[in-house]
Amino acid sequence: MLVTDLIRRKRDGAELERREIEFLIDRYTNDGLPDYQMSAWLMAVLLRGMTRAELAALTESMLNSGEVLSFPELPAAKVDKHSTGGVGDKTSLVIAPIVAAAGLYVPMISGRGLGHTGGTLDKLESIPGFSVNLSVPDFRRILAQCGAGLIGQTKEIAPADKKIYALRDVTGTVESPYLICASIMSKKLAEGIDALVLDVKTGSGAFMKQEKDAVFLAELMVETGQRLGKRVIALITDMDQPLGRAVGNALEVAECIDILNGKGPDDLRELSLILSAWMFLLGKRVQNIDQGRELAEQMISSCKARDKFREMIRLQGGNPAVMDDPGLLPQAQHKADVKSPTSGFVTGFMCEQIGTAGVLLGGGRLRKEDSVDPAVGIVIHKKTGDKVAAGESLCTVHYNSVERLEQAQPLILESYRIEATPMLQQRPLVHRIIGDPLALSAAAEIAD
Amino acid sequence: MLVTDLIRRKRDGAELERREIEFLIDRYTNDGLPDYQMSAWLMAVLLRGMTRAELAALTESMLNSGEVLSFPELPAAKVDKHSTGGVGDKTSLVIAPIVAAAGLYVPMISGRGLGHTGGTLDKLESIPGFSVNLSVPDFRRILAQCGAGLIGQTKEIAPADKKIYALRDVTGTVESPYLICASIMSKKLAEGIDALVLDVKTGSGAFMKQEKDAVFLAELMVETGQRLGKRVIALITDMDQPLGRAVGNALEVAECIDILNGKGPDDLRELSLILSAWMFLLGKRVQNIDQGRELAEQMISSCKARDKFREMIRLQGGNPAVMDDPGLLPQAQHKADVKSPTSGFVTGFMCEQIGTAGVLLGGGRLRKEDSVDPAVGIVIHKKTGDKVAAGESLCTVHYNSVERLEQAQPLILESYRIEATPMLQQRPLVHRIIGDPLALSAAAEIAD
Repeated sequence: MLVTDLIRRKRDGAELERREIEFLIDRYTNDGLPDYQMSAWLMAVLLRGMTRAELAALTESMLNSGEVLSFPELPAAKVDKHSTGGVGDKTSLVIAPIVAAAGLYVPMISGRGLGHTGGTLDKLESIPGFSVNLSVPDFRRILAQCGAGLIGQTKEIAPADKKIYALRDVTGTVESPYLICASIMSKKLAEGIDALVLDVKTGSGAFMKQEKDAVFLAELMVETGQRLGKRVIALITDMDQPLGRAVGNALEVAECIDILNGKGPDDLRELSLILSAWMFLLGKRVQNIDQGRELAEQMISSCKARDKFREMIRLQGGNPAVMDDPGLLPQAQHKADVKSPTSGFVTGFMCEQIGTAGVLLGGGRLRKEDSVDPAVGIVIHKKTGDKVAAGESLCTVHYNSVERLEQAQPLILESYRIEATPMLQQRPLVHRIIGDPLALSAAAEIAD
Repeated sequence: MLVTDLIRRKRDGAELERREIEFLIDRYTNDGLPDYQMSAWLMAVLLRGMTRAELAALTESMLNSGEVLSFPELPAAKVDKHSTGGVGDKTSLVIAPIVAAAGLYVPMISGRGLGHTGGTLDKLESIPGFSVNLSVPDFRRILAQCGAGLIGQTKEIAPADKKIYALRDVTGTVESPYLICASIMSKKLAEGIDALVLDVKTGSGAFMKQEKDAVFLAELMVETGQRLGKRVIALITDMDQPLGRAVGNALEVAECIDILNGKGPDDLRELSLILSAWMFLLGKRVQNIDQGRELAEQMISSCKARDKFREMIRLQGGNPAVMDDPGLLPQAQHKADVKSPTSGFVTGFMCEQIGTAGVLLGGGRLRKEDSVDPAVGIVIHKKTGDKVAAGESLCTVHYNSVERLEQAQPLILESYRIEATPMLQQRPLVHRIIGDPLALSAAAEIAD
C-alpha cells in the first residue's frame, strides 16, 4: 500500500477502504508515517470530506490505537454525555451525580479548557484535593463503588487522537467536522460506554456559530456512534449566552452545588435535567423521556444526587465539605461590578467574548503551558431578556490582578447588546434533536 | 505572521498577499518552516488553486530563493525552450544548435527523465565524455564562446523548488498546475533569459492527457512569465505518439544528428523548425514567424547547426566524432523486432506505455537512484497512419537483457492500435498557440 496513493485518492475525492484508513492510522501512531504525509492527508480530508463509512473506519482506527475500557462486571448500563464546549457550560458536574444516583454508571473522560471555553477537569480541580489523574484500576474501582468517575485523558486512551490533534493544531486542519467527529468519538467510545448523549452547542459562544454546522457535526457523530454499535443521540442546544450565571472554575462548581441543592439558575437546571433524561432513556433506565426527566428531578429533590456528588468528591480525594460550605472553594481577592452604561433590555451577547474575558482573568489558558487560576471568573446578573437600568450591575468580576481585570472588563461590557425594546422571542434551550428518539424509545421498551 | 493563519486562509480559498507567500517560501527554504506545515499548505493550494498574482509571487519567491543568472555581457538575446515532457521528445538537442548557430544565446538548464518521459541530460550523457555538471563560470564561458550551454540544475538555482519538489513527490501534491507552473518557471527564469518558448505536450504520451489541462497550464506559464517581465509563448503540441522514431538516449542522439544532417523523420524536423522559429521571433532575431522558420532551415541546410552541435559537444567534454560516426555512441548488444500480429493501419498508440517500455529496458529510472543504460531503446518503424502487414516489424527493440526485453515487448505490442481502415484525419503537430503571437511580432518589429 503506497501512502502517496492514499493521499492522492483522498485528494481526488475517492473513497478509501477501511483497511487503507487503518493502515494510515496504525502507521502514524507507531511513527511509521511522517508528519508531512499525515498533514497532507488531513488537509485533503478537510477539503474533500469523507463518506460515513470512511469516518467510521477512521474513528474505529483511532479508538483501537490504544486501550479500550470495558466494564462487563458492572450490573447496569454505562452512559456518558459529551458537550462540544461553551461558556459557563458545567452540566457534567450536575449530570454525573444525577445519573449515578439513579443506578447507571458514568465513566466520564473529560478535557481541559480549549480556547474561550471552560473544561470539566479545570472545574473539578478547583475543589481542594480533587484529583482527575487516576490510574485505570483506581478509576474502575471508584466507578464500581459510586457509579461515576471523572478523569482526564490518559496516554493509553486513543493515542492516535493525541498525535493527530497536535498536528491538526499547527496545520490548519482543526476545523474539519469529520476530524472533529473522529477525535471526539474515538475518545468517548474508548470509555467502554453503551450509550452517549451529545450536547452540540450552537450560537455566539459555541465553536459552531451556525446551527447548520452544529447539525452537520451532530449527524456525523450520531451516525458514527451507531455504526460502532452504540446508542447515540445529539441535542443541538443554545450557546448564544453563557449557561447559568457563573463563568470560572470554582464559581461554576458552586453553581452546580446550588443546582444539586434545588436552587441555582433555571437554564442550567433545565438543560441538566433534559440531558440526564436522555441518558436514562439511552441507558434503558426508563421507557420514555418524560419518565427520564421525572427521575432526574427526583434525584435532586431527594438529595440523592447531592449526596452522590459528595461521595464522588470524597473518593477522588477532594474535600467533601465544599458541598455544605462552598466558601471552602478558592475565592478571588477582589470583586468589581460591570455596570450598564444605558437603560434598556439585554437582547444578546457576543458570548465568545465573555469566555475570552474569563480566560484573560486567568480562568483559562492563553498557551498550553499556562496554569489556571481556579478562583477568578464572572457572575452574570443580567441575561438575555432582562431589563436593566443605567448604572445597574450587569455582572460581577471576581479577580486577583488589576491588570487582568482591565483587560477583561471592556470585553465583557462590549459583549452585551442592550436595546430600548426587548426581543420578541427568546432562543429555545434545545434547538433540535438529532437521531431518532422514537426508535430509541422503542428499543428501550423492547429491551426492558 | 502566523503560518497556521496562512494555511487556513489558503484552505478557505482566500488570496494571500505577495509578502505572505514570500514569507512561507523564505522560511521553508531556510529550514524555518517544518515539512508538515508546507505539505498542508501545498495540498490546500492544489485543491483551492491560486490567483495569477499569487502564482507570480510564488514563482518569483522560488526564483529568488537562489542564484539568478544574468548575462549582460552577451551581445544578443538569451532564449530558451522548455518542454513539459514526452516520449521521443528530443527537440532540445536539435534546437539549441540551430538557435545558437544563428547568433542567439541558449542558456539551457535541463532535467533528467521523469516517469515515462525521457530527459535531455540523460540523452546528452550518452555522448561519450559529455558533461552536464559544469560550474556556473564554465557554463558562462561556454555559453559566451559557442552560444549554447546545456547543464543540469545546480544547487544554487532555485533551491526552494528542489526542496518543495521533493516534498510534493511524497505528499500527493505533484499534479497541481499552479505548483507545476511555479516549479518550471522559477527554474527557467533563473537562467537569465529574455524569452521562453514553451512546448506543452498533450496526448496519450504526455503528462497532460487532456488538451484542456495542457492549455490551462500553458496559460498559467505564459501569464506568469509575462508578469515577471519575460517574452513567453506556449505551443500546445501533439504527444499522442512518440516524436520521431527513436526512443532511448543514444538512439535519440543519433536521430538528432540525422536531423542536423538534413535527414531524419519529418515530425521531429518540423517541430524543431517551428520551435526554433518562435525562439528567433521572441529573441528579436527575425520580424515574423515565416522568417524564423526560413532562418532555422538555413541553419540546417548550411550545416551551421551541425557544426554548432559538434562545437557544443567538444566544449562540454564530449567526443565530437559522434557527429560523423554515430556508431561511436553506445550500442545495445541485441536487437529484436516487435511484429504486427495483423494487417491493417496503425490508428493510434497508448504512447505512455511506449515510454514505460523504454524505462523498463533500462533507458529510464524506476527509482531515483537507478542508473540509466544509454544504449537501449526502441526504433519505431510504423507510426500513426502507416499501413502494416501481418508479421511486418512495427519497431525494433535495442536491449541488453532478455529479462528486460520480456517485460518491455508486450507493453509495446499492446500499445499499438491497428485497425482495418485508416484514420480519416491525423492529429496536427501543433494544436494551438497560447499567448499573443501578433503582439509578439509587433513588439519584435518595433524593437528591430
